[in-house]
Amino acid sequence: MLTDQQIQDLNQPLLDDHQFRYQFLTELLARRGVEAPDVVQQLVAFQVAIPSWALGTGGTRFGRYPLGGEPRSLEEKIQDVALLNRLNGSSNSISLHIPWDIPQDVPALQQQLRESGLTIDSMNSNTFQDQKNQPYSYKFGSLSNTETAVRQQAIQHNIECVEYGKQLGAKIHTVWLADGSNFPGQQHLRRAYQRTAESLASIYEAMPSDMTMLIEYKPYEPHFYSTVIPDWGTSYSLCQYLGQQAQVLVDLGHHLPNTNIEQIVGRLKHFGRLGGFHFNGSMYGDDDLTTGSTKPFQLFLIFNELVDAAQDQTLAEAAVAYMIDASHNTKDPLEDLLQSVESILGAYAKALLVDRAALHEAQESNDVVRAEELLRDAFLTDVRPLVAEAYRQAGGALSPVAVYRAGQVREQLIQQRGKLSLSTGL
Amino acid sequence: MLTDQQIQDLNQPLLDDHQFRYQFLTELLARRGVEAPDVVQQLVAFQVAIPSWALGTGGTRFGRYPLGGEPRSLEEKIQDVALLNRLNGSSNSISLHIPWDIPQDVPALQQQLRESGLTIDSMNSNTFQDQKNQPYSYKFGSLSNTETAVRQQAIQHNIECVEYGKQLGAKIHTVWLADGSNFPGQQHLRRAYQRTAESLASIYEAMPSDMTMLIEYKPYEPHFYSTVIPDWGTSYSLCQYLGQQAQVLVDLGHHLPNTNIEQIVGRLKHFGRLGGFHFNGSMYGDDDLTTGSTKPFQLFLIFNELVDAAQDQTLAEAAVAYMIDASHNTKDPLEDLLQSVESILGAYAKALLVDRAALHEAQESNDVVRAEELLRDAFLTDVRPLVAEAYRQAGGALSPVAVYRAGQVREQLIQQRGKLSLSTGL
Amino acid sequence: MLTDQQIQDLNQPLLDDHQFRYQFLTELLARRGVEAPDVVQQLVAFQVAIPSWALGTGGTRFGRYPLGGEPRSLEEKIQDVALLNRLNGSSNSISLHIPWDIPQDVPALQQQLRESGLTIDSMNSNTFQDQKNQPYSYKFGSLSNTETAVRQQAIQHNIECVEYGKQLGAKIHTVWLADGSNFPGQQHLRRAYQRTAESLASIYEAMPSDMTMLIEYKPYEPHFYSTVIPDWGTSYSLCQYLGQQAQVLVDLGHHLPNTNIEQIVGRLKHFGRLGGFHFNGSMYGDDDLTTGSTKPFQLFLIFNELVDAAQDQTLAEAAVAYMIDASHNTKDPLEDLLQSVESILGAYAKALLVDRAALHEAQESNDVVRAEELLRDAFLTDVRPLVAEAYRQAGGALSPVAVYRAGQVREQLIQQRGKLSLSTGL
Amino acid sequence: MLTDQQIQDLNQPLLDDHQFRYQFLTELLARRGVEAPDVVQQLVAFQVAIPSWALGTGGTRFGRYPLGGEPRSLEEKIQDVALLNRLNGSSNSISLHIPWDIPQDVPALQQQLRESGLTIDSMNSNTFQDQKNQPYSYKFGSLSNTETAVRQQAIQHNIECVEYGKQLGAKIHTVWLADGSNFPGQQHLRRAYQRTAESLASIYEAMPSDMTMLIEYKPYEPHFYSTVIPDWGTSYSLCQYLGQQAQVLVDLGHHLPNTNIEQIVGRLKHFGRLGGFHFNGSMYGDDDLTTGSTKPFQLFLIFNELVDAAQDQTLAEAAVAYMIDASHNTKDPLEDLLQSVESILGAYAKALLVDRAALHEAQESNDVVRAEELLRDAFLTDVRPLVAEAYRQAGGALSPVAVYRAGQVREQLIQQRGKLSLSTGL
Repeated sequence: MLTDQQIQDLNQPLLDDHQFRYQFLTELLARRGVEAPDVVQQLVAFQVAIPSWALGTGGTRFGRYPLGGEPRSLEEKIQDVALLNRLNGSSNSISLHIPWDIPQDVPALQQQLRESGLTIDSMNSNTFQDQKNQPYSYKFGSLSNTETAVRQQAIQHNIECVEYGKQLGAKIHTVWLADGSNFPGQQHLRRAYQRTAESLASIYEAMPSDMTMLIEYKPYEPHFYSTVIPDWGTSYSLCQYLGQQAQVLVDLGHHLPNTNIEQIVGRLKHFGRLGGFHFNGSMYGDDDLTTGSTKPFQLFLIFNELVDAAQDQTLAEAAVAYMIDASHNTKDPLEDLLQSVESILGAYAKALLVDRAALHEAQESNDVVRAEELLRDAFLTDVRPLVAEAYRQAGGALSPVAVYRAGQVREQLIQQRGKLSLSTGL
Repeated sequence: MLTDQQIQDLNQPLLDDHQFRYQFLTELLARRGVEAPDVVQQLVAFQVAIPSWALGTGGTRFGRYPLGGEPRSLEEKIQDVALLNRLNGSSNSISLHIPWDIPQDVPALQQQLRESGLTIDSMNSNTFQDQKNQPYSYKFGSLSNTETAVRQQAIQHNIECVEYGKQLGAKIHTVWLADGSNFPGQQHLRRAYQRTAESLASIYEAMPSDMTMLIEYKPYEPHFYSTVIPDWGTSYSLCQYLGQQAQVLVDLGHHLPNTNIEQIVGRLKHFGRLGGFHFNGSMYGDDDLTTGSTKPFQLFLIFNELVDAAQDQTLAEAAVAYMIDASHNTKDPLEDLLQSVESILGAYAKALLVDRAALHEAQESNDVVRAEELLRDAFLTDVRPLVAEAYRQAGGALSPVAVYRAGQVREQLIQQRGKLSLSTGL
Repeated sequence: MLTDQQIQDLNQPLLDDHQFRYQFLTELLARRGVEAPDVVQQLVAFQVAIPSWALGTGGTRFGRYPLGGEPRSLEEKIQDVALLNRLNGSSNSISLHIPWDIPQDVPALQQQLRESGLTIDSMNSNTFQDQKNQPYSYKFGSLSNTETAVRQQAIQHNIECVEYGKQLGAKIHTVWLADGSNFPGQQHLRRAYQRTAESLASIYEAMPSDMTMLIEYKPYEPHFYSTVIPDWGTSYSLCQYLGQQAQVLVDLGHHLPNTNIEQIVGRLKHFGRLGGFHFNGSMYGDDDLTTGSTKPFQLFLIFNELVDAAQDQTLAEAAVAYMIDASHNTKDPLEDLLQSVESILGAYAKALLVDRAALHEAQESNDVVRAEELLRDAFLTDVRPLVAEAYRQAGGALSPVAVYRAGQVREQLIQQRGKLSLSTGL
Repeated sequence: MLTDQQIQDLNQPLLDDHQFRYQFLTELLARRGVEAPDVVQQLVAFQVAIPSWALGTGGTRFGRYPLGGEPRSLEEKIQDVALLNRLNGSSNSISLHIPWDIPQDVPALQQQLRESGLTIDSMNSNTFQDQKNQPYSYKFGSLSNTETAVRQQAIQHNIECVEYGKQLGAKIHTVWLADGSNFPGQQHLRRAYQRTAESLASIYEAMPSDMTMLIEYKPYEPHFYSTVIPDWGTSYSLCQYLGQQAQVLVDLGHHLPNTNIEQIVGRLKHFGRLGGFHFNGSMYGDDDLTTGSTKPFQLFLIFNELVDAAQDQTLAEAAVAYMIDASHNTKDPLEDLLQSVESILGAYAKALLVDRAALHEAQESNDVVRAEELLRDAFLTDVRPLVAEAYRQAGGALSPVAVYRAGQVREQLIQQRGKLSLSTGL
């Protein structure tokens, strides 16, 4: 489905317009002392992991409207990500979710991954739902449960994820702990924290030394009074408790209204504890929309912190895992993922354009307007030609969504997999 | 299950304590010129409708943890509400949801209702999900859909609900319109409103002259960019467009953070457009928790507005429909409903205790502290003996939850209906 | 200070870069069937009123840090706005605030305005503070006060504003009613509304037939429990009560967290009740920051609604007053206003670029991704050359802030008016 | 003004009613195994510090409406607090604010404090405003300023506060750092944090070993893009950096919408880093209203965490400083403070009534309804007789506000100090 050649062919009608725009931008940037090709190279190198669970149509508690052609197996999920990666050259890894993605035949899987040029970036455990035949229920929590047996089950599940990760070469084990309470009094808040810390320590010990545990935070949902890990401060304190391989995961949708997320990003970089991101779009809460669809300026400001930190010699180098975590209700999930990656690359490109020397000077001299204008100049620049050029240089589509549509991919997927195929996920 | 006699028996051990507390409160109130029996009588008369869809365990998009014994049919739902009403004497009607509660045998149903002393208060349509074999999908909206055929289907569904309502004696048709959009641009905001207004008009015309249409508003979820009816202003404008039988429905969980809901209640009473309530508890959004579990003071202030308006001779008399709308994840749903009704009765009792003459005087003279203290005095009073006495006088349990537990109702329900019975709902 | 000739001279070094960018954009748009000069013409015609009270440094309740050179009189305020208008050609009117801007010599003022090419767009009343020698205090409200005498004083003050407006040719009388309460019980919510409606009616009657009353809403501050006019629904209901000359004013900072403001804009246009805007930037509440500094995408979406409505033949034509309302703590207020106008023009330019025919088609066929991408395409386009060209054609500066700085305006103002001059305002 | 004897006299008419209610409650509690006198004793021992800056009428940025009789000097402030303490026996200390309360004659002050039975609990520095003749401005920050000289000035000011504290026996030095930024880019977020940490370290070193530094956090205002210490996580990280004498201060109004504050309280107790509280009421933000006026249930839940932690043997004992921080616009400030202390005592009393053994059992067995009902039982109990009895036993008024009014205190203060006396503060 959509060979490299087909993509090149579908690029043809877009090429002239692209050249026109890219050439202009190249000259514009050159006048400012920026080499466009250098920026493009950094974009080519940038990769965002695709979550296996976002390849099918998502839903809300009120309904789900699948559109057909969803991947029915882990193999088909890998095919879908390979397709995305052929289109944008920026999605060369997959986040797996256990038990939805338990590998049946590891060597075959490794083979498929190699052939597709993909890797597994992270394993994600699931203790927010009960699986069939599971001895104990997570109704009242998993890693924080009052019952030792339930906690042990949840710890064991996480350790299994770590094991799968070792087999598949994943270097990250992500814990999103949904545990919490719906009513005051239901949970002893301090003891729940303590039990969680100890459970996490058991999992931490099972990790190989080159694996990182990412600890996600979320203020509410699925519980609506308290969540055991509601904010970055709690994640951070748990990381301190566990050790240097524990890092904080920032999901853009997991914040209270009006939170300045980019400041949290800067703070965690300062502490050496920013492990990674779950990108998505959010207007009200954990809306799980397309990244960049609601607050593109915020996304840019987040990347501004990341680029600033990456260029800061005083900070220890530390990898940040870039992952998408979304759930697409009314869009074709593959189109949505292509849009998300494009928004992320755009934000990154803009952050790379910021004149940091001038910004530093303006900040030091408290020239507020100048400092702000330096950021705005980068933000207002139309960087789409840089992103398209990065796609092109990676052998992808100048406009992934347009090419995906022109190539009639969804229609083919429906034909192959059926109108009623359902992917695992929310 | 739990006969009146059993309830009386189970009341026995609680009676002495109740008398002790009720007598004290009676004297305390008498000293302030309030006759406790009068208040109790008003509590006895107060009724809250139970939603058929809250009788089973609810869920979030992340999981559902049923506890067994859930009603498997409309008949069993009526049995459950009858039980609640036997326990608290304050739940003598049911809100039905179509298509989950389509009556198969209307005369038999009417018979069951009569024998149980129950009525159907309202019909609730569902155009937020696709039903099997439905010709058109609501993926992109129902009453606001761009396609005439989809709108017609949704209108027709609502008219059917109205018809069922006529058969069952329901005087209310409730419309919660989930329609909205997830991304800027997806929906033309003005046209979507206009289509909705016209669709509602078609339904309105089908209503008999003694039926009221309640129009609910909700700012977000299941859509996360815009909702066609996001706020009371929009509901109100639609009511004006439709006619006097259209009224606004206030769901406590359907507001943006920090909304002063009691002021909206007062506003709508002022306009003669407050049709009813969906009670529930909310800390973050449409959390659908037990009423009164998170913001008991707000609940009291809402009832303060209601009682104030009810006693205002200058306002036209207008019925307000009191309904619960919740979804119980981690509690026994019947216990949760008993708690909710108790919180509502408590808030009402407190509002009845407010010294309105003194409050009026304090307000007119801008004695801020005095006005506030008058409300606080009512709020801080422990009115539970009044509520318990109302239960008792209605033949119910002094403590419905305690008696429900002592009577081992859930255990019996599981035995009768099975551990895996699943009720319709979210 | 900064003659037209000086501005032209200061434009010189920027001209080559501008031509380079404008030519590119002209061709790019031509390829999409859009004539850049047409867009520029619409930008040239677009005007935003400058509030007299934003010309000095603003403050918070915690402190104020003036920077010197602030206008000491109404005449100096007009000079400042004239300067802004010379720089950007887009600020040809002033919003006055009474009593801060009571004109002493009306004919002289009219003369100054004529010579400066400026008009007075609106009068703004102030009943949120007590003025020296005022007989009654507004501590407990003005138009909603329980005391007739206080209400009369506030009505009279508003009528005086209307009179000043008539003398100065202002066509708008703006009412921001700060009235509200800090504690439950303090104010009788329904009666406060009724008194307000009646007070407004008295003012409304005093307006000439070509004047519009704009009714602003605000959810909180300076009162923190309730505000008499907290939301658009309340403003709208008051407009209905008063008559067609009453219209709703939308201040971008006056909404609860996560409000979809562009939908309110569309709604009010639909009802024919959108009277105008107070533009500013807001991240948390009524932050009164530079317009566009925090949520540029939201600003674009608002203009998208405005342009869409303006091009809708089915809507009655209706003027919308564009005004800034801000308060600048840490910036030079004149630079801040130049930035604000530039952001507004940019958002308008982008909204003009939206391909509405294609968008209509995508919306009608529920092609979510396509509809969204059409908006994003406009938003992501770098329209700064269009705005600069509009400035240029109006005889202004290619970059107003840069030219303002190069011309050393603030330094001159400080020299003329002193380091400690203080403007009226917050 | 209001001698002990006068208070006793004014108590007389209230005594009978009090006895009636207290006796009932004593018996009610006895039936549940709780000794009312024990609870009363704990209430008698409980003390809340009064901030010197809340003794005058506060204001918003829009206006201030003083009511007369405000304290004109530190001595008069101490008189006011002494009066409050005579009335409620629960306010035996004062928080001072420098430079507003710089002591002129330390021995005389100590003498006055001793005679009044008062102490100074804490010193509060002020670097959020410029003081006359201050060499450097805090317009762009104080402890985080980019300029060394400005930081030094701010450090020096804090060290002076520490010195005053040593002289006056204060054991707490409170730092509320208003520093932040209004626009993206204005401040380098990581460097601003680092400078702050180092500045705090300089102050920390100047503290004697028995003094605690409390570090307050606040998400926004007076800056509206970022605040250097926006959340508990940041305060906590700074405390870790500084040492064990640094502790987090929780101000109830300093949180984003929907924050679960009681969980933060529990978390900080768990970490041994909860240093104290600034109590006030908040509906929207830092509203600085009467404590308990808007969210009484939240206040109870906070005390529930405090009592739970205090009774937890596994936690190291650690003093928590209870302070009020409010600003009263429309109330008599002294009445407001009496109300605040009463709400705090009420919340504490309710928390003391919680049956912790039963709660523990319910939590361990995940009996959600039971656990919730145990908290609700305490919350719904009318504990006012316990608080009144505590007042009585301390020699105070049965109803402080009523006695304050009956004693015509404000009228006397106005007579003594004048109608136009103005206290320092906001």
